[in-house]
Amino acid sequence: MLNFNYSIQTKIFFGKGKIDVLADNIKKYGSKVLLVYGGGSIKKSGLFDKITDIFNKNDIKFFELSGVEPNPRITSVRKGIEICRENNVDIILAVGGGSVIDCSKAIGAGYYYKGDAWDIVLDSRKITKVLPIATILTLAATGSEMDSGAVISNLETNQKLPTFNEGMAPKFSILDPTNTFSVPKNQTAAGTADIMSHIFEVYFSNTNEAYMQNRMAEALLKTCINYGQKAMADPTNYEARSNLMWTSSLAINGLLSYGKETEWSVHAMEHELSAFYDITHGVGLAILTPHWMEYALNDKTVDKFVEYGVNVWGLELSGDKYEIARNAIKRTREHFVKLGIPTSLKSIGINEEKLETMAKQATARGKIGSFKPLDANDVINIYRSSL
Amino acid sequence: MLNFNYSIQTKIFFGKGKIDVLADNIKKYGSKVLLVYGGGSIKKSGLFDKITDIFNKNDIKFFELSGVEPNPRITSVRKGIEICRENNVDIILAVGGGSVIDCSKAIGAGYYYKGDAWDIVLDSRKITKVLPIATILTLAATGSEMDSGAVISNLETNQKLPTFNEGMAPKFSILDPTNTFSVPKNQTAAGTADIMSHIFEVYFSNTNEAYMQNRMAEALLKTCINYGQKAMADPTNYEARSNLMWTSSLAINGLLSYGKETEWSVHAMEHELSAFYDITHGVGLAILTPHWMEYALNDKTVDKFVEYGVNVWGLELSGDKYEIARNAIKRTREHFVKLGIPTSLKSIGINEEKLETMAKQATARGKIGSFKPLDANDVINIYRSSL
Repeated sequence: MLNFNYSIQTKIFFGKGKIDVLADNIKKYGSKVLLVYGGGSIKKSGLFDKITDIFNKNDIKFFELSGVEPNPRITSVRKGIEICRENNVDIILAVGGGSVIDCSKAIGAGYYYKGDAWDIVLDSRKITKVLPIATILTLAATGSEMDSGAVISNLETNQKLPTFNEGMAPKFSILDPTNTFSVPKNQTAAGTADIMSHIFEVYFSNTNEAYMQNRMAEALLKTCINYGQKAMADPTNYEARSNLMWTSSLAINGLLSYGKETEWSVHAMEHELSAFYDITHGVGLAILTPHWMEYALNDKTVDKFVEYGVNVWGLELSGDKYEIARNAIKRTREHFVKLGIPTSLKSIGINEEKLETMAKQATARGKIGSFKPLDANDVINIYRSSL
Repeated sequence: MLNFNYSIQTKIFFGKGKIDVLADNIKKYGSKVLLVYGGGSIKKSGLFDKITDIFNKNDIKFFELSGVEPNPRITSVRKGIEICRENNVDIILAVGGGSVIDCSKAIGAGYYYKGDAWDIVLDSRKITKVLPIATILTLAATGSEMDSGAVISNLETNQKLPTFNEGMAPKFSILDPTNTFSVPKNQTAAGTADIMSHIFEVYFSNTNEAYMQNRMAEALLKTCINYGQKAMADPTNYEARSNLMWTSSLAINGLLSYGKETEWSVHAMEHELSAFYDITHGVGLAILTPHWMEYALNDKTVDKFVEYGVNVWGLELSGDKYEIARNAIKRTREHFVKLGIPTSLKSIGINEEKLETMAKQATARGKIGSFKPLDANDVINIYRSSL
C-alpha cells in the first residue's frame, strides 16, 4: 500500500426529505446564494420551488445561473463569476448532476482569481481560495458532490480539462434518492457507466498489495451491476436509486484510490470525445472501456483481469487465464449493452476524421495511465477499435 | 437504506515515516501537549524518543500520562484531566492502541466538565466540549483513531461503558504500519478479532437493502481473514500490517453502518466480561461471537448467514440453507482457532459464578441488539454456551 493523506471533509445528508437541513446549513456560510442549475428539469420536478420556498422563508437571498450545459462550458463559469461578484455572494448551491456541480466549483474558484477563469482550468495551481460550495444532487454519476475536482469544456479551443483544489470539495451535499426518480433511462444508464468507470480507473492498478481497497472497489462494482438495470426498469425503486447514489459518491471521493497508483486513461480519452463532439460522458466511457480492457490485456496485466472476472462477475477460477480475462471483458461489454448504451463511436456520430487530433491532445502532457501506459498511437488504436 | 448524516472529519496520515507531519499538525492547535501512553512499549520501540525529539526541536512543551491500562480506567482519566488543567494543555496526543486513545478522549471531554469524569461516561449528553485529540496508532484493533467513541472501565462499580461525542473524534491520526511490527502474536490476533467483531455488529442487520454497505463489510472481513495469520507469522509484513491497520479504521468510522440498523450486542456482552474479569477485549469477542451466531440463527435470520457464508467464506450456494449457515459459523470459529485465540470462557478464568450478574448488567438499559434482540435470559444462555 502506498502512503497517503486522507481528508474527506464534505458532510453528507442522505435520504428522503433531507432538504430539511438546507437553510440551517446554508446559514453557516452566509445569506446570499448563487443558485446554479441546468436545463430546468428541477422546475418540472418541483425541486426548484421547494428550494426557493425555503430560501424565502429563511431570509436567504438568491441569484440564479441557469442553463448550465451537460459538458459545462467556461462561458457559463464566467457568467457565474460575474453574478457572484456583482452581488457579493456567500455560497454557491449547485442543484443538479456533475455538470452543474463542476461549473459551480469553477465559479467558486474563479471568484477569487483575477485573470480569466480558463487559466485556473489549465493550471489548478492558480487556485488560491474558493467560495463555499454546497450541492443538492439529482443524478448519480460523477461523484462531484463529494470530491474536489471539476471538469470544464472550452468549445473555442476544443478542450475539456479537469482541475482540482481541496477548497472545491463541497462543504455539504444533500443526497435524496427521490430526486433521481425522474432521471430518464438513458441518463440512468450513462450515470451508472460513469460510476463504474471511476471504479475501473482505480481498480486496474499496479498496487496489488492494496487488497482492502481492491475488495471495496469490487463491492461498489457489484452494486452498480446489481442496480443499474433495476433503476432503469423501475425508476422509483428507492433501494436501487439509494444504492447507486451513495455508490456514486464513494466511488471517487478517494476511498478507493488512497494508497494506490491510479489509471484515469479512459477518462482522458473520453474527454477528447466530449470536447470535440459534445457527447454524453458516460456513453463515451462505456464505449471505450471494453476496448481499453482488451488493449490493456497482456502477460503483465492478465492476473488483474482474472481477479476482476472471478470477484466481480463470479467466473470460475479454473482453466486458461486469458480465457477468464476475455470472458470478464465480454461480461463488461454485455452489461453496457443491457443498459442500452450504444456500443460504437460511429453510432454516436464519431468517425475516423478527428481521431488523430484527439489522440494527440489526450497525450499532450505525456503518456496516460500507469497500469497500461498509452501514447498517442495506443490511443488511436483504441479509438479505432471502438469505431 | 435508512437516512443518515455522514461526517468523518479525522484526517489520516498513512504510511511509513508519516511521523514527519506531527509537529506541523500539533501546532495548528497549540504548543502544550499531554502525551498519553501505556505500559512503555513505545519506549522499547524507540517511538517515544522520536516523538519527544520532534517536540523538543519544535518548541512543543509536553506533559506525560503513562501507564494507561488495557481496559482504560476512570482513575487514569481523572489523573489526565488534572495534568491538563494544571498546565493549560492545548491538545492531547494519544500514542498507543484503543485503550490509550479512549482514555485520551475521555480526558479531553472531562477537561471541560465540572463534575466527576465518570458522569460523562454514564451520560454522554453531559459532554459539551472536548480538547483536541490526536493519535499515533500502534495497534490495529479498536478503530478509535477515527471514531468518536470511548470505552472506559470503573473497577469500583464493575462497569465498562461506552460514551460518544463528535468532538472526541481525533483531529488527525498518524497511521504508520511499521509501528505495529512489534505487536506480539496474541495481541495481533485479538486486534484482528476486534476489527472483525466491529464489522459483524453492523453487517448482521435487518437493513438488507443497504446492499453496498453489506458488500463493503464483506470486503473488510475478507481483508481480516486474509491478513490476520500472515501478520502473526511474519510480524514485519508491511502488506499485512498496512491492510489490517487501514481496515481497523474503516470498520468503525461509520462507513459500514451509515444507512443501517446496527447490532452491537456482542460488544455489550463482552464489556461485562472485561468489566468483571479485566480480560482482553478481542479475546472475549472471539469467544462469544460463534456462540452468538448460533443463538441468532433462526428462520428470520438464516438468509443473512447464508449471504455471509457465500460471500465471505466462498461457500457454495446450494443445498440446505441451515447447513450453509452452520458451515459459515463453523468457519468463523475455526478462523479464531487458527489465530490462536482461546475458545472458551473457562480457559480465561471465567466460570458460572457471575454470569447472571453480568447478564443483568448487560441488559440494564433494556434488550440489546435488533437483528436478534437479547434479554437477560438470552445473554445468560450465550454466556453458558461459551463456558
